[in-house]
This record gives sequence, structure tokens and C-alpha cells, in this order.
Amino acid sequence: MSNYKHILLAVDFSEHSKEVVLKAKELADYYQAELSLIHVVDSVPLVDIGYETAMPFDYDLNEIFMNSAKAKLQELARDLELSFKESWLELGSPKTEIVRIATENAVDLIVVGSHGRHGLGLLLGSTANAVLHHAPCDVLAVRLKDD
Amino acid sequence: MSNYKHILLAVDFSEHSKEVVLKAKELADYYQAELSLIHVVDSVPLVDIGYETAMPFDYDLNEIFMNSAKAKLQELARDLELSFKESWLELGSPKTEIVRIATENAVDLIVVGSHGRHGLGLLLGSTANAVLHHAPCDVLAVRLKDD
Repeated sequence: MSNYKHILLAVDFSEHSKEVVLKAKELADYYQAELSLIHVVDSVPLVDIGYETAMPFDYDLNEIFMNSAKAKLQELARDLELSFKESWLELGSPKTEIVRIATENAVDLIVVGSHGRHGLGLLLGSTANAVLHHAPCDVLAVRLKDD
Repeated sequence: MSNYKHILLAVDFSEHSKEVVLKAKELADYYQAELSLIHVVDSVPLVDIGYETAMPFDYDLNEIFMNSAKAKLQELARDLELSFKESWLELGSPKTEIVRIATENAVDLIVVGSHGRHGLGLLLGSTANAVLHHAPCDVLAVRLKDD
């Protein structure tokens, strides 16, 4: 069989995301694979209300979220003493960006958290599903507790 | 982290299903987990055409498919020198049966093949997706070549 050589860990910052990180790390250690990291910030369009934007144009939510995510990624890597081959912070559709990065970087296993189907879980669960459906490689969906 | 203790391998008999089996076997060896096997035969309803059944009632396609699947499962286990904790051959909806067996048997990782989205792959890919969405545990979807 072909062992995994490049594992892409897709993280959100939910309460249980450390479980996903640790499982990806253990698999990377076992297969002696390179481990890379991706987090995707859902892009936030300016909402147009009756031909008026909901917020002033110089107020860039995407930039704020990206800066916050960057800090969280660095914190995560530091806390878990992880070193990654590459680390991507992307803005856009999570499933699209995860699949794109995996395809462009010869990833052979994507590790992603999967929530239940209620509340926020529905969104994240759908992302895991979409990644599975479109991924060019294997996908390990780590079931996260929703409590 | 919690290691896997009971891995459920869901097999179809597609050309590349041995890849899925071997990955499940290697993970079971690594985690020293028990490995169980399931194959689900899609139930075939008698098709009713203009109030007449399409085939005589004493002609049971399901039984024929189940017997064929049973032989293939034994052949697979023999060829790959596998021993399973348990082996289930179920009749019904693949996603429903896989999730049911996983739930009833404290499975913590389901390994299932995932095809592309075209042709037969659409059906099988959907099964992997549905399993992911409803599974009580982690799911490893092994991408199968569709060529």
C-alpha cells in the first residue's frame, strides 16, 4: 500500500479542535509524513441594505478575522509544540480552499473535524462532507463532540 | 488522545477495494485495534409495472446477491489473510446499516472507500458522505481511483 507522505490538517478553532490536531500529528509521526496546516476564514461580504452598505467601506471585517486567525494558529502551534511543513491561512470558502491547497500541494490525506448536524455543526459538518466529496485524496473526518 | 480500539471496515467489491482493506488493516495494526468488516447489499424491491410484479415472487434477487456477497467476503479475507473480530453482511441501505452497526458495536473509526462523483461513483461517494454525516465516530474515506 502507499503510505501517506503529506498530511493536510484543516483546523477550525472550536472547543475540541485539539483532538483533530493530535490525531493528525500522530498519523504524521506514524507514516513519517510531512504535516501542513490550513485554516480558512469565511469571507464576509459587505451586506447591502436598501442600496446602502451595512458598514463603512474602511471597516474591513475580513482583515480583522484574518489577523485573529493568524494569532490563533500561532498559539495552537506553540501550545502543541507543532512544526508544520507549510501553514496556510486562506480567505474564502473553506471546502474550496482546502481542496485547492490539497490539490496544489500533492496532499494525500486531509484531516478535518466533523461536527454533528445541529447548530454550527451543520455548517462545519457540511464542510467536511464537501471536502470528502471533492478531495483528490483520502479524508479523515474526526468526529467532534458537540456538547 | 484516545487511540482507536474498534475499526469497522466497510467494503464494496469494486476494483480498488483492496486499497481500503489494506489501509484499515495497517491502522488496526498500528493502534492495536480490533478490526471488523461490513458489507451491505442494497435491497432490491420487486418492481411493480402496471400492477404486475416484474418478476415471479419465488425469484429472490436479494437472496442471490447476499449469497454472492458472502462468498466474496470469504474470498477477500482469505486472499488478504485477514481475521476479523466480527463480520457483518447486511441487507438494506448501506449508510443506514453501516452507521447502525458502528453505533451498536462501539466502533470508533469507520474506514470506507470513496469514489468520484460520476457514474457509479456518485452513488458510492454519496454513501461515504452520508456515513460521515451520521457516524457516531471518526470516518476515514479512502479515495478510490475511478479509472
